[in-house]
Amino acid sequence: SECREIIYLIHVACVCAGHNASRDVVTLVKSVLFHRRNPLHFHFITDTVANRILSSLFQSWMVPSVQVSFYDADELKSEVSWIPNKHYSGIYGLMKLTLTKALPSDLSKVIVLDTDITFATDIAELWGIFRKFTDKQVIGLVENQSDWYLGNLWKNHKPWPALGRGFNTGVILLYLERLRRIGWEQMWRLTAERELMSMLSTSLADQDIFNAFIKQNPVLVHQLPCFWNVQLSDHTRSEQCYTEVSDLKVIHWNSPKKLRVKNKHVEFFRNLYLTFLEYDGNLLRRELFGCPTQASPESLQKALEELDEDDQCYDFRRERLTVHRVHLYFLQYDYTPTEDNTDITLVAQLSMDRLQMLEAICKHWEGPISLALYMSDAEAQQFLRYAQASEVLKNRKNVGYHIVYKEGQFYPVNLVRNVALKNANTPYVFLTDVDFLPMYGLYDYLRKSVVQMDMAHTKKALVVPAFETLRYRLSFPKSKAELLSMLDMGTLYTFRYHVWPKGHAPTNYAKWRTATTPYKVEWEPDFEPYVVVRRECPEYDQRFVGFGWNKVSHIMELDAQEYDLMVLPNAFMIHMPHAPSFDISKFRSSSSYRNCLNTLKDEFHQDLSRKYGSAALKYLTAQRNI
Amino acid sequence: SECREIIYLIHVACVCAGHNASRDVVTLVKSVLFHRRNPLHFHFITDTVANRILSSLFQSWMVPSVQVSFYDADELKSEVSWIPNKHYSGIYGLMKLTLTKALPSDLSKVIVLDTDITFATDIAELWGIFRKFTDKQVIGLVENQSDWYLGNLWKNHKPWPALGRGFNTGVILLYLERLRRIGWEQMWRLTAERELMSMLSTSLADQDIFNAFIKQNPVLVHQLPCFWNVQLSDHTRSEQCYTEVSDLKVIHWNSPKKLRVKNKHVEFFRNLYLTFLEYDGNLLRRELFGCPTQASPESLQKALEELDEDDQCYDFRRERLTVHRVHLYFLQYDYTPTEDNTDITLVAQLSMDRLQMLEAICKHWEGPISLALYMSDAEAQQFLRYAQASEVLKNRKNVGYHIVYKEGQFYPVNLVRNVALKNANTPYVFLTDVDFLPMYGLYDYLRKSVVQMDMAHTKKALVVPAFETLRYRLSFPKSKAELLSMLDMGTLYTFRYHVWPKGHAPTNYAKWRTATTPYKVEWEPDFEPYVVVRRECPEYDQRFVGFGWNKVSHIMELDAQEYDLMVLPNAFMIHMPHAPSFDISKFRSSSSYRNCLNTLKDEFHQDLSRKYGSAALKYLTAQRNI
Repeated sequence: SECREIIYLIHVACVCAGHNASRDVVTLVKSVLFHRRNPLHFHFITDTVANRILSSLFQSWMVPSVQVSFYDADELKSEVSWIPNKHYSGIYGLMKLTLTKALPSDLSKVIVLDTDITFATDIAELWGIFRKFTDKQVIGLVENQSDWYLGNLWKNHKPWPALGRGFNTGVILLYLERLRRIGWEQMWRLTAERELMSMLSTSLADQDIFNAFIKQNPVLVHQLPCFWNVQLSDHTRSEQCYTEVSDLKVIHWNSPKKLRVKNKHVEFFRNLYLTFLEYDGNLLRRELFGCPTQASPESLQKALEELDEDDQCYDFRRERLTVHRVHLYFLQYDYTPTEDNTDITLVAQLSMDRLQMLEAICKHWEGPISLALYMSDAEAQQFLRYAQASEVLKNRKNVGYHIVYKEGQFYPVNLVRNVALKNANTPYVFLTDVDFLPMYGLYDYLRKSVVQMDMAHTKKALVVPAFETLRYRLSFPKSKAELLSMLDMGTLYTFRYHVWPKGHAPTNYAKWRTATTPYKVEWEPDFEPYVVVRRECPEYDQRFVGFGWNKVSHIMELDAQEYDLMVLPNAFMIHMPHAPSFDISKFRSSSSYRNCLNTLKDEFHQDLSRKYGSAALKYLTAQRNI
Repeated sequence: SECREIIYLIHVACVCAGHNASRDVVTLVKSVLFHRRNPLHFHFITDTVANRILSSLFQSWMVPSVQVSFYDADELKSEVSWIPNKHYSGIYGLMKLTLTKALPSDLSKVIVLDTDITFATDIAELWGIFRKFTDKQVIGLVENQSDWYLGNLWKNHKPWPALGRGFNTGVILLYLERLRRIGWEQMWRLTAERELMSMLSTSLADQDIFNAFIKQNPVLVHQLPCFWNVQLSDHTRSEQCYTEVSDLKVIHWNSPKKLRVKNKHVEFFRNLYLTFLEYDGNLLRRELFGCPTQASPESLQKALEELDEDDQCYDFRRERLTVHRVHLYFLQYDYTPTEDNTDITLVAQLSMDRLQMLEAICKHWEGPISLALYMSDAEAQQFLRYAQASEVLKNRKNVGYHIVYKEGQFYPVNLVRNVALKNANTPYVFLTDVDFLPMYGLYDYLRKSVVQMDMAHTKKALVVPAFETLRYRLSFPKSKAELLSMLDMGTLYTFRYHVWPKGHAPTNYAKWRTATTPYKVEWEPDFEPYVVVRRECPEYDQRFVGFGWNKVSHIMELDAQEYDLMVLPNAFMIHMPHAPSFDISKFRSSSSYRNCLNTLKDEFHQDLSRKYGSAALKYLTAQRNI
C-alpha cells in the first residue's frame, strides 16, 4: 500500500497563547496523534510565549509524518482588536475569525480546534465530513449544548443572535477556499459591526460573531453530529448525544471548571483525558506504515547509521544521539531584564527525587532561576500539581521550569544542564547543583561582584566556595564568620572533604578563611567548582551521560578558553544531605562502564586539543599523571 | 439503548501459573479492557500462586462488567501429565487441551489467549468471527508464521505433523459446545498417543498436538486472518500480515527474547505494549454506558451514598472508602515455613522515594519480609527493573512485594501497612518502618525471644528500642555496648529525641541502658514503639490517612486488647536520615486538616469504648489531659 499522504494530509489549526494553553494543547495533540493514521499538519496561531514553547517541543518531539507551522498572533491582533470582548479568553478568543487571512492562501480546508478538546477517535473521520458538504456549505459546526443562545438563562439575559441554540466553535470544519471566495473577511466584519451597535461587546468571543453570521446565512453551515463536540459545560444537553462509548468522538472541556465539571459520565471523560495527560509522548513517535517520511534530520540519521553496535561503548554513544523531548517554560514565567545588564540566573537541573529542594532554593535566591527537570510525562503532571499547591513556588514568576522528558537508560545530566543554561535570560549565570543552598544574600553579592570584577570585558569564572553538612537540621549560617566557626566545630565541612577532596581543593579553603578580596586560583585535574560565568560560556559536553566527569569536563574547557578562576571571598554555598539517589544507571557502574568513561575522556581530550591547540595537551598530561 | 450484555458477553480463557505469568497477564488484560465495549468474562486456569494474585487483583480492581472465574490447574494436571513435553512452559503449556473439561459445561464458546498477547483492537471483533464458522468448524486459528513445521530448520529437524506451516495456538477461537459434541477429549488423546510413539515428546507443548489433530481433521479448522496473531518470533513472516497500522489486531510476543526481538516494526509494537504496561489501571474502571452492572459490592455503594459532601472531613472519609488495586507477590516469592513455629516476618510499607532502603534492610534482616509498596503502574514497572538489576534483591526469595496502586490525594498509610501485615506468612510479625535498619542479628534474637517470652500462649508486644542518626555515613554499631557509646558521643540519639520525644519515651531508655532482661512498660498517650506481635494482632485503623496518628492508634488498640508491652534489653534499630518526603498531602496540612484529624481521633476513641468497654475510656481521658 502506498503512503496515505497521497490520499490526504489533514490540516489542523489552533489558536494558542501563553504558558497554560501551551501546556493544555499538548494533551489535545497527544489524543489526536494516538488515534491518527494519516499525516498531519498542525497550524498554530501563537503569541511569542507559545511559539517558543511549541516550536522547541515539536522540534525535539520528532513525530514522523507531522508538520508544524506557526503564525504570529501579534500580526493578527489589529484584525480583531477593535471588537470589545468580555470573554476570559481575551483577544485570542477572537482570532479564529482571521484564519482565512492567517493561514496560507493555498490551504483549502482546515479543522479548527480549541485547546481544551480531547479526541477519542481518528481525526480522519472528522476530516472525511468535508466530503459531505453541499456546494454551498463553507463551515461545519456542532450545535451548542447549553441554553445560552436561547436567551432565557436569567432576567434580561440578551445573547447575540443565533439559529436556535446556536453553534459551538470549539470544533470547526473550515472550508477556507470557499470562505475566501464568498468574501468571508468582509462578511463577518459587517455582521460584527452591525451587532455591536446594539450589543456593545461580545460575551463568548468569536462564537457570538460566528453565530450572528450563521443566523444571517444559514445555508452556509453544515451541522455536524453532536458527538463531534460533546460539551461538558454545566447544564449541558450533551448526554442526549451518545448512547454508547463508541459514539463519543470529541470531548470539549468548555466549562471554566474543566475536569471538575458535573456530568453523569464525567468519570469516563476524565479517564480519557487523564490517559493522554500522562501518556508517554515518546510512544507517539511511531511511524505510519508505508509513509517513509523522516522525522529526524539527516545528520542524525547518518550519525545513527555510523554507530557500531559492537563498540563496547555503544550504549553511551547511542544515548548521546537520543533527542529528548523538551517542554520549555512548563509553568507561568515572567522575567523583565534589569537595565544595568548585570543580572545573574541560577542554573540547575533535577529529577523528581529533588523536588523538595525547590522551595528552599527559592528562599535563598531571589533572582531569576532556570531549572531543567528530567521527568516522565506522568511525573511532569505530578510536579505541576506540586508547584500549584506550593505558596512559595506559586508566588515566584522569575523561575523558568523546563521539562526534559525521560528516555533511555542513562541520566543525560549534561544535556539537561545545557537546557537550563541555554534558557537563562540574563547576561550571567550561576552554575550550581540543586542540592546546594546559596548563602542568604548571594544573589546581591554576585551582582556586585560581576561589576567589580568587570565581567563584561574580561573572561572570568567566579568561584563560589562549596561546603557541606551531613546533618538535616542545620541552622544555616548567616555570615562567613558563622560559617567558619561551624567549620571549626565540625558542624560543616568543605564539600566532599571525606570522599573526594580533589574536586574542590584548588579553591584553597585555607586562603579563603582570611581572604577579603577575590583571588585567582589555577586549574588542576578534577577541579569542579561552582562558578558564575557569562551566559555565552561553552556548553556542557553531552558525551558524558550518567555519572562521572560531567562538571570536570566543563571547567576544563573554561580553562582551555582561558577563563580566569577567581574565588570570591564573601560567597559560600552549602550542600544539603540527601539519601543516595535512586537511579537505575548506578547499577550499570560495572567495569565496562568505567572503561567507557575512560574512552570518552580520551576522546574529549583529543577534541580539546583539536579545538584549542597544543596548549590543551596539558589536560591529557595531567590526566595521565594521576 | 440496552446493555450489550443482551447482545453478547465475551468469554476469554487463559492459562496462568506463577509470579511472572501473573504479572504478564495483567498487560494483556489491560489491552483488552482498553478497547472493549462489551461485558467480559475471564476464565483463568491457575496454580495456587496465580490464583492468590489474580483473585485479589480483580477483587480490588472492581472493573464494571467484568466477571472472573478461576479453575484449579492442579486438578487438571493428571489429564496431561502423561505427555512428555520439552517446551519451556512445562505442564501448563499443555493445559489448553483440557479446556472443554475445565470450563463450565454450559459454556459454548471461548477465546483462548496466551499471556504474552497484546490487543490493538476491540476483542468483540475477534469474537464476531465465531459467526463466520461453517457448521463443521470447531476451532479458529492463525497460521504459524515461522518455518518450524516445514521441518527444514536444521538437518534432521523433525517437527510434529502439521498442515503446511501449521497453526499457532497463542490465539484460539474454541467452539466448546461443538468440540464436546464431536468427542474432542478422546480425539486429541488418540492423536497424541499415536504421534508420541514416534515423536517421544512434544517440542511446542499443546501446539504440536493441536497441529497433529488438525492435520487429521482439516475440515474442523477455521483459519483466521493472520493479523489476529502477529507473531514476533525471529525469522517470522509476520510482516506480510499487515500493510497499515489499522490492520494490526493482536500482537504475540512469542519469541523467548520478548521485547528485544528483531523485527522491522518492532518499535511500533513495543510502544503499543509499553502503553499498556504502564497504563494506569484505575482508568479502566470506567463503566460501559447502558450496562448498569455494579462492580463494587453493595455495602460500599451504601457507604458512599451515606457520605455527606458538606462534612468538612469528607475527603478523609471518602479516601477511606477508596478501594485500591492490590497486586500481591509482584515478584518471585518462595518461603517455606519453619517447623518450630517461631518465625517472624519484618513488615513495612514504602513508596518510590524509599526504594534505596531495600538493599540495606535485606542485609540487616535475613528472615522473611512482607513489603507493601504504594505506587503507580508506571512506578511499579520502574521498581521491577530496579529489583531485577539488584544482586541483593534478586538473590532473596523470602521477600513478598505487594503493590498497592496509588489513587486519590492522601497517602493511605494504614491501608498499605495492613496489606503488608495480612500477607505475612509467619506466626509473628515485626512491625517496623522502612527507614529503619534493624541491628545485625535482630532476626535470630527475636526468634529466641519469641520462645523465651512464651508468645504462643501469652499476649505480648515485644518492643524493639528505636534510635536515630542524623548523619549519612554511620558506621553501624555492632553491639549494644557500641550503640551506648555512640549515644554518649552524640553520634546517635534516641528516636525523635529532638522533635517528638513522647513517641518513644515510655520505652524508658535510661532503664534500657543497663537492662539485661525484658521489662514491662505501661502504655502512655502518643506512644508508638516498633513491636513484635503475633500476626493475628488488630489491623491498623484505616481511617487515619495521610499523616498523624497512624501508629499511635494501633498501639492504643494493642493496649486495649491487654497486650503486655515488653522492652527487649538486647534489641535495637536505627532510623536512617532521609530528605523530607515529597508528598503532596503535606501541603494539605491546613487547620481544617488538623481539625479533621481531631474529629477522627474522637471517633476512634468512641469506637474503642464501644469495642472494649469502659476500660477504654482511659484513652479519651489521657487524650484530653494533653
